[in-house]
Amino acid sequence: MTMEGMSTPILRADGRTPEQLRPITITRGWTTQAEGSALIEFGNTRVLCTASFTEGVPRWLKGEGKGWVTAEYAMLPRATNTRNQREAVKGKIGGRTHEISRLIGRSLRSIIDTKALGENTIVLDCDVLQADGGTRTAAITGAFVALADAVTWARGEKLVRKDAKVLTDTVSAISVGIIDGVPMLDLPYVEDVRAETDMNVVVTGAGAFVEVQGTAEGAPFVRSELDQLLDLALAGNLELATIQRSALGWDA
Amino acid sequence: MTMEGMSTPILRADGRTPEQLRPITITRGWTTQAEGSALIEFGNTRVLCTASFTEGVPRWLKGEGKGWVTAEYAMLPRATNTRNQREAVKGKIGGRTHEISRLIGRSLRSIIDTKALGENTIVLDCDVLQADGGTRTAAITGAFVALADAVTWARGEKLVRKDAKVLTDTVSAISVGIIDGVPMLDLPYVEDVRAETDMNVVVTGAGAFVEVQGTAEGAPFVRSELDQLLDLALAGNLELATIQRSALGWDA
Amino acid sequence: MTMEGMSTPILRADGRTPEQLRPITITRGWTTQAEGSALIEFGNTRVLCTASFTEGVPRWLKGEGKGWVTAEYAMLPRATNTRNQREAVKGKIGGRTHEISRLIGRSLRSIIDTKALGENTIVLDCDVLQADGGTRTAAITGAFVALADAVTWARGEKLVRKDAKVLTDTVSAISVGIIDGVPMLDLPYVEDVRAETDMNVVVTGAGAFVEVQGTAEGAPFVRSELDQLLDLALAGNLELATIQRSALGWDA
Amino acid sequence: MTMEGMSTPILRADGRTPEQLRPITITRGWTTQAEGSALIEFGNTRVLCTASFTEGVPRWLKGEGKGWVTAEYAMLPRATNTRNQREAVKGKIGGRTHEISRLIGRSLRSIIDTKALGENTIVLDCDVLQADGGTRTAAITGAFVALADAVTWARGEKLVRKDAKVLTDTVSAISVGIIDGVPMLDLPYVEDVRAETDMNVVVTGAGAFVEVQGTAEGAPFVRSELDQLLDLALAGNLELATIQRSALGWDA
Amino acid sequence: MTMEGMSTPILRADGRTPEQLRPITITRGWTTQAEGSALIEFGNTRVLCTASFTEGVPRWLKGEGKGWVTAEYAMLPRATNTRNQREAVKGKIGGRTHEISRLIGRSLRSIIDTKALGENTIVLDCDVLQADGGTRTAAITGAFVALADAVTWARGEKLVRKDAKVLTDTVSAISVGIIDGVPMLDLPYVEDVRAETDMNVVVTGAGAFVEVQGTAEGAPFVRSELDQLLDLALAGNLELATIQRSALGWDA
Amino acid sequence: MTMEGMSTPILRADGRTPEQLRPITITRGWTTQAEGSALIEFGNTRVLCTASFTEGVPRWLKGEGKGWVTAEYAMLPRATNTRNQREAVKGKIGGRTHEISRLIGRSLRSIIDTKALGENTIVLDCDVLQADGGTRTAAITGAFVALADAVTWARGEKLVRKDAKVLTDTVSAISVGIIDGVPMLDLPYVEDVRAETDMNVVVTGAGAFVEVQGTAEGAPFVRSELDQLLDLALAGNLELATIQRSALGWDA
Repeated sequence: MTMEGMSTPILRADGRTPEQLRPITITRGWTTQAEGSALIEFGNTRVLCTASFTEGVPRWLKGEGKGWVTAEYAMLPRATNTRNQREAVKGKIGGRTHEISRLIGRSLRSIIDTKALGENTIVLDCDVLQADGGTRTAAITGAFVALADAVTWARGEKLVRKDAKVLTDTVSAISVGIIDGVPMLDLPYVEDVRAETDMNVVVTGAGAFVEVQGTAEGAPFVRSELDQLLDLALAGNLELATIQRSALGWDA
Repeated sequence: MTMEGMSTPILRADGRTPEQLRPITITRGWTTQAEGSALIEFGNTRVLCTASFTEGVPRWLKGEGKGWVTAEYAMLPRATNTRNQREAVKGKIGGRTHEISRLIGRSLRSIIDTKALGENTIVLDCDVLQADGGTRTAAITGAFVALADAVTWARGEKLVRKDAKVLTDTVSAISVGIIDGVPMLDLPYVEDVRAETDMNVVVTGAGAFVEVQGTAEGAPFVRSELDQLLDLALAGNLELATIQRSALGWDA
Repeated sequence: MTMEGMSTPILRADGRTPEQLRPITITRGWTTQAEGSALIEFGNTRVLCTASFTEGVPRWLKGEGKGWVTAEYAMLPRATNTRNQREAVKGKIGGRTHEISRLIGRSLRSIIDTKALGENTIVLDCDVLQADGGTRTAAITGAFVALADAVTWARGEKLVRKDAKVLTDTVSAISVGIIDGVPMLDLPYVEDVRAETDMNVVVTGAGAFVEVQGTAEGAPFVRSELDQLLDLALAGNLELATIQRSALGWDA
Repeated sequence: MTMEGMSTPILRADGRTPEQLRPITITRGWTTQAEGSALIEFGNTRVLCTASFTEGVPRWLKGEGKGWVTAEYAMLPRATNTRNQREAVKGKIGGRTHEISRLIGRSLRSIIDTKALGENTIVLDCDVLQADGGTRTAAITGAFVALADAVTWARGEKLVRKDAKVLTDTVSAISVGIIDGVPMLDLPYVEDVRAETDMNVVVTGAGAFVEVQGTAEGAPFVRSELDQLLDLALAGNLELATIQRSALGWDA
Repeated sequence: MTMEGMSTPILRADGRTPEQLRPITITRGWTTQAEGSALIEFGNTRVLCTASFTEGVPRWLKGEGKGWVTAEYAMLPRATNTRNQREAVKGKIGGRTHEISRLIGRSLRSIIDTKALGENTIVLDCDVLQADGGTRTAAITGAFVALADAVTWARGEKLVRKDAKVLTDTVSAISVGIIDGVPMLDLPYVEDVRAETDMNVVVTGAGAFVEVQGTAEGAPFVRSELDQLLDLALAGNLELATIQRSALGWDA
Repeated sequence: MTMEGMSTPILRADGRTPEQLRPITITRGWTTQAEGSALIEFGNTRVLCTASFTEGVPRWLKGEGKGWVTAEYAMLPRATNTRNQREAVKGKIGGRTHEISRLIGRSLRSIIDTKALGENTIVLDCDVLQADGGTRTAAITGAFVALADAVTWARGEKLVRKDAKVLTDTVSAISVGIIDGVPMLDLPYVEDVRAETDMNVVVTGAGAFVEVQGTAEGAPFVRSELDQLLDLALAGNLELATIQRSALGWDA
């Protein structure tokens, strides 16, 4: 029982409550080379997202009047606390990289009307410059902003029709996990390694699920825990949607 | 309106009800070369699972008194309706293959007591000989049986202690999806391509979740749909656990 | 001198006489996905052969009115007594695999009338599910059956002319070797490793040679030994031709 | 109208005189994960340099009491005006990347006393986040700063002796080129593509040459042109040395 | 003198009789870098063979008191009439190259007493500088000479025992084929492409077979043709053995 | 000042004076397969250069009425004193190989009028058969001769216009270095490893610079040393130009 006047004990190393996001920063146009770009920060996690717009689609999609959106995720070798060998040096892309690239691509395609995009391709590059947990969720959230700017650019260049509603909604992602029995939002690295269960949840601005990926790192989790994690993730994503809209100046 | 006495209309091409599994067959010892093996069939999906037991662990795990379990998934080039190029010919493993191999490995590690296993390694190879949807879930379900037999073999060979409880539970997996608004269990290929939402759920014999991987292929899904899919998947996995135990002769 | 009443000493671990084949089983249509398929067993050696028929030919053959037949051989990682690393994981195909794939392709092309096939391609995939010596000879023998079924299928689909004689003969292969000075037919693994000389011989149904590949594993062999091995191989292949025709129902 | 006595007309798009550097910015500690790091900007060219210090040396150097310094250069796919395919996706590192990585490594080794470093390794990663000409020269100049900070860190951690003079000097690099007959310093992309001759010059703080790499892109160049370019590059590098020392607080 | 009506028709473009070798030249010590080397010419086919002797054996052979001999075959890109892409550029070794490298290695191991060699390794590199048919047979024949010189060198360096009989015999190889129904020896490129049957035969100095590799390029061949080809190849190899011994000064 | 009667001390192991080239030999047409070829020797360094002429240009150059010249450099595994692993076996081309191939290509393009060449491609392959320092400079010098012969061949075949001046000049390259404080020309391997500074200089017949690549292997070098090296290299290249013209019979 929590009595009046009693302070909630701080559970997390960085002073946050279990249901609190880390400070989120979105810097649009961090690079001037791409049609859209955003440097997104979830605490110390820092991901550079660029959107490259090109006319035309891959061969297998030609002539269908639809566009294509895809993504590539990577980490700089020293984004992490110890150095990782470059995948280009190894000569192949690892399983984890593949998995995250595919997740980002699917997530963004969920809010794209490919007919409205027309036969154009947008490639999202998400390069982790500094990693402190939640890189894939930051990547999805930042890539949406870069994507939105690339669509605006294309409209300005008359590469998509002026009235085409290419984006059907916003999309963002957040991690949740259970640590010492407590469900928590947006795990930094030190929490991530301790989590018994780790879940990444991708949600649209309207609050519908795009992806739910939950993994028992330690003991399997029961249905009630799953329900709590989903609640936490939904709420966190709605906050992220507000931050995205604000960064894009959509609610001004 | 459904009146009393009216039979439920059959919704599925193969005559199953939405909550029904396809016929499941498990043939233990299909190959005599491996320490454990099982040919598992989910309808027309046919996966050969072998468990290779070797003494010793990878370098990074040496001296910790713990074992290692890992998995590799692959598909024969003509397991599917049209031929796919071999990954060995391409010279690299695709993202999907990586993703599924990692999923199988994580799923099986969830029910392994690595201390009880000792410094030994078990590699599960799951090769899809014929594919008709649900290959990853059949692979997990069959790999558990091969794994169990390899553990039994190792006990016989005195490579693990006689009383060591290496397996802490059974584990199985099933796919669920929403088709034309109806949640359905264990999707064959024709249903899989039509599903708006597709989820693979890995569950222990005790009914706890190991992995939940849900993807909106079409429209994002809402919380109530997610709940229905989880119910369906839990029930399906409990049936699979019974089939596994029976194949292993554990309930005799 | 062998006197009347003296029994021939049994030389082989499995009780066969030197000139005897192992039990041969051919299961047509083992997989339903391919245009032709056969699971072939030479004793414990078990190879799944599929024939994939596609319209069109590789670029370098276009416009010549001729078809193309090629083959790929591979082994599951645990087909053998100890596990081998997957070639897809290594990122390249080994010399032995290349060599056998090329041998199978040449062998089958020897009995194909590529003009009668028309501008179509047939790819034979020979995947060793369980290995116990003679995998390449089983692959050639089984691939012929899959190929024959794919040709029949194509005729039914009117992709080749009804009266086109695409197959000019049958083709099969068998191994022979000298063990402790005795020439023997169809070596399983335990004999193969002991053989001083090892030869694979590919022969048409009419008894003509397509390939002769003899290697002195131990001491070089003299001309008279070579002659004995060729006699044995010819006789063994004629038996295989009978089994193939019977499996295909050609002599009914 | 240019009247007598009027100052030299400005030749360059960005308003610089031929012998002027672009604005140079060095942000030390841009990432907190590495032992040393610097974000360096030469105008719009932006390179993140990290220095990773690890104890021990590569096998071929063991037991000689000397350290090792090496470098890897890479470009984000959308650092440039159009997107380049990732080298990790191609599965191999291109010739240009190799060449620049080797140049950076050699340049930094020129001012390292490997005996003083002891059996330790420092890897410099130079990742181009935005490219506008001169990426390799920015990389060398920034990598020196990251290297210096990593050495300071190692001294603090007592991984190198307190009094060891690991760095024998500073080192920096600048590009020079001839455009329309005029030798110019520090070329951005628009000038680089127009240059008849392009030279990268690596110089120590003391003004000695470490590398001279001159290439005639158009017509071959004569000795007097070469002399002018070398003069320009020497002066530019001395300016860079001052900026480096200032960023490191060495002249305070 | 050729009498009227009797004239022997010259069948071959280069004026040889069917059973005649091309001019064979062996230049020992063509390169001074290797422990043994020979430039061998079969007509216009020119192969540089080097033998590299190193102390020690591959890991899998350590401690058995035996040596190892292996070979690598390659072709310069413009050894042939049109340029072939380098295998290093393709990033993988082709099937044909693998096959020939393995053949050369097996052939040379057949006349090596690995115990007498001791724990040493000899690598034979056979690089085709100019190709005009029969490159693999020239490679085997030349590699033997390089190998013999490397063994002599090792004896001089006291790396093998003075009295060790490392080489048990000579070994050589020649191609034979049937052209327009006539069996012929040592086919240059123009004949090779016309041959119905093509066979490479590796024979020891004592006249025993090491390898027999016969392939029906056109129609399958019958037993009597095979016999004729083997006769021709045996005789040709005995001539080569004489040339090898003479080049090595063994019959002086 | 050098007075009469005073002998110049011989500084170099092979008896040359510092400014003397090694004996240079150029054998045109060493292989008969290529459109142009030259075996070039700089002392014991021996490089086979072939020029392959093909009609057409790479896709990115089509329709511009210009030709393309490119180069590939490689070393046989035993060209050097100890054996190097083949790059084809490693599955990738090393940084050094890439760098040199690019250098050779740039050098030769500097004296090609691509318009005069028309839409044709010439590939220069430079394969080092024996290495003793200066392989890249020998390659450039020899490749020019092969290139010149290929252009002559193409003129004869009417693949380039009779009066087209495809080659605008000759081009050659030489190494220079400082050893024990003395600038020296054309370093063999024993000198190369001892050089404090090593420079490769590519110069046209007219004495203009195409490439200057200087590297401080030991201590950085000062401007006066650089000047001396450039003088030496210019003089050496003019000698090489004379040898090239003589080999081509251009001054007869």
